[in-house]
Amino acid sequence: MLEDWLAPKAAALESRGLTRRLRPRASGEVVVDLASNDYLGLARDPRVVEAAVEAVREWGASATASRLVTGTTALHAELESELAAYVGQETGLAFSSGYLANLGVITALGGPGTLLVSDDHVHASMVDACRLSRSRVEVTPHNDVEAVAKALAERNEPRAVVLVESVYSVLGDAAPLTELAALAVEHDAVLLVDEAHGLGVTGNGRGSVAAAGLAGAGHVIVTMTLSKALASQGGVVLGPSVLRDHLINRARAFIFDTGLTPAACGAALAALRILSEEPSRPEAIHGTAARLAAACGVTASAGPVVSVPMPGPREAVRAADLCLANGVRVGSFRPPSVPDGISRLRLTAHAGLSTTDLDRACDVITTAIREAS
Amino acid sequence: MLEDWLAPKAAALESRGLTRRLRPRASGEVVVDLASNDYLGLARDPRVVEAAVEAVREWGASATASRLVTGTTALHAELESELAAYVGQETGLAFSSGYLANLGVITALGGPGTLLVSDDHVHASMVDACRLSRSRVEVTPHNDVEAVAKALAERNEPRAVVLVESVYSVLGDAAPLTELAALAVEHDAVLLVDEAHGLGVTGNGRGSVAAAGLAGAGHVIVTMTLSKALASQGGVVLGPSVLRDHLINRARAFIFDTGLTPAACGAALAALRILSEEPSRPEAIHGTAARLAAACGVTASAGPVVSVPMPGPREAVRAADLCLANGVRVGSFRPPSVPDGISRLRLTAHAGLSTTDLDRACDVITTAIREAS
Repeated sequence: MLEDWLAPKAAALESRGLTRRLRPRASGEVVVDLASNDYLGLARDPRVVEAAVEAVREWGASATASRLVTGTTALHAELESELAAYVGQETGLAFSSGYLANLGVITALGGPGTLLVSDDHVHASMVDACRLSRSRVEVTPHNDVEAVAKALAERNEPRAVVLVESVYSVLGDAAPLTELAALAVEHDAVLLVDEAHGLGVTGNGRGSVAAAGLAGAGHVIVTMTLSKALASQGGVVLGPSVLRDHLINRARAFIFDTGLTPAACGAALAALRILSEEPSRPEAIHGTAARLAAACGVTASAGPVVSVPMPGPREAVRAADLCLANGVRVGSFRPPSVPDGISRLRLTAHAGLSTTDLDRACDVITTAIREAS
Repeated sequence: MLEDWLAPKAAALESRGLTRRLRPRASGEVVVDLASNDYLGLARDPRVVEAAVEAVREWGASATASRLVTGTTALHAELESELAAYVGQETGLAFSSGYLANLGVITALGGPGTLLVSDDHVHASMVDACRLSRSRVEVTPHNDVEAVAKALAERNEPRAVVLVESVYSVLGDAAPLTELAALAVEHDAVLLVDEAHGLGVTGNGRGSVAAAGLAGAGHVIVTMTLSKALASQGGVVLGPSVLRDHLINRARAFIFDTGLTPAACGAALAALRILSEEPSRPEAIHGTAARLAAACGVTASAGPVVSVPMPGPREAVRAADLCLANGVRVGSFRPPSVPDGISRLRLTAHAGLSTTDLDRACDVITTAIREAS
């Protein structure tokens, strides 16, 4: 049954050059990493690793249940309050993934009576959350402030939430947060900003919401991931305590999910402390991103992701393969992971890359793009 | 804005005795645990803890990206193939949570042309997946094989997937897998079985699908969680390789999520090996569950969960509080977490509980139920 159903679909993907395959990494692998989301270069930092070790030894390997049963340890509470304090929010609530954090908060605020206004480029987790929410959803063109204003002004719903990312994942550009927050106030709406690519990167590490002076505003909610700059796994929703209480009672992706492992909490907390003590790390990301963008002849990005358009999916994969064969790992993006349908290389700048490695990477990448195109 | 919106909702919950609050555990806490999902008592087993430690030291604190980019390590592949072999399936694919595993597989198989037939008592993640799938969904009364047969026979869709749990979370009862699998063959449908509460418990640990002789059948798919018997975090979808390839290409909750941490993979793998080498552990769960059920005067359950109905939500919370004050931690279930609206105590049997502790726990629980009711 499954064979008859799925094999033809697999063949169709293959014929269009769109098949994805997993390629397990070996642990001793030596490459220049411009593909992972370990933006601050902390996933193997001994302080982060030892904090994970200490957490698993103190608390065990699992949270052991939903956060509402036995899955909340004192370590979860510590991580949530330190992260909230760092980014200037009143409270935080950790989910076991960033995907579930977005799903949880958006469905808990959505439903009849709430309009969701979603930027066309938001992450898959927000798109899925919109679909799941039973809200009416207005998808607005990317970064189109006028369109958001129109959707808010013309709504019949008493409530509305505007969904954006502070720094977008594929194109690497930023949202106009100041304008959007002003619109939210004007139209009695809430602005929800996913800072997956902002935390640890923009606003000297504190993210774009803090940089825009919007942290702690009663109409702004932030989601963040622990799996990128903070070198761990999980997601956090940040905002006023009334929101946190609401999520504990209403967010199904929180209530019906096992809590984040103690090891992941410990690692994220250690990474957060390093970020807070070493402000040169976010700066280094921007320097590296600018150098990569210049080498590839594309516009500098707002965050760590430098996006290089390629002629098609096969060329993108071939260029990434050539880079890897020459010791440089880059990402490739193909439909359906690109909002505009354009396949591309995705270069991710990291703090902690040496000048020698960066120079060599630029050579390898530009050569690979030429040869693959 | 958020304050005006959410504060009245919080007050309404409070007035009905339904407010949920997080109570962080302290690490030195000494209680008899009948609340967590650490069914095999492995979350603090030194072998599991040290496997997590070794994994974080070898691979770092994070998977660092989506499984499709840098997020697949050799350890992920090892976990997936060992778990598949243990439960008799061809392949496995790990997600960062069980919630996302169900969301991923159901949405990747759903859509126009696929009917989803879902038991009324399935987990929230499957309910959400149905809603998200764009499929037509038929919810059938709990364990009603006739209703499933009717839904399959009368469908217009070419494809259908029947969604059940092998052992249900709240009532603790089992699904009629043999009958359902026969129906799936008869009606050219797929049976998807969530073994969250079966793995490590039923079928000598291999789960109910294996016990029913259905492991590896081309029309049966299994999902499992790594966060219960396997003392870690995450979820796995198991089935033929054509399914695994399909999920890698189509499951948004897999593609757009960061991979499970190496520490969580290492812990789950170590727990799996202990489970496979120590078959007395699953047996011990059943003995403990039977003893708890007898003490509370309820029917013995198919798995680790013993469900004790209470007069109302306040009584359930009060009984659980009384137990904790006397050194025994039990769970309480209140609406909306109960499919039939009946509040209850939820006692979870664990391997590794001493006879003395179990005797004392039975005394404490029966006294608390009497005093709270």
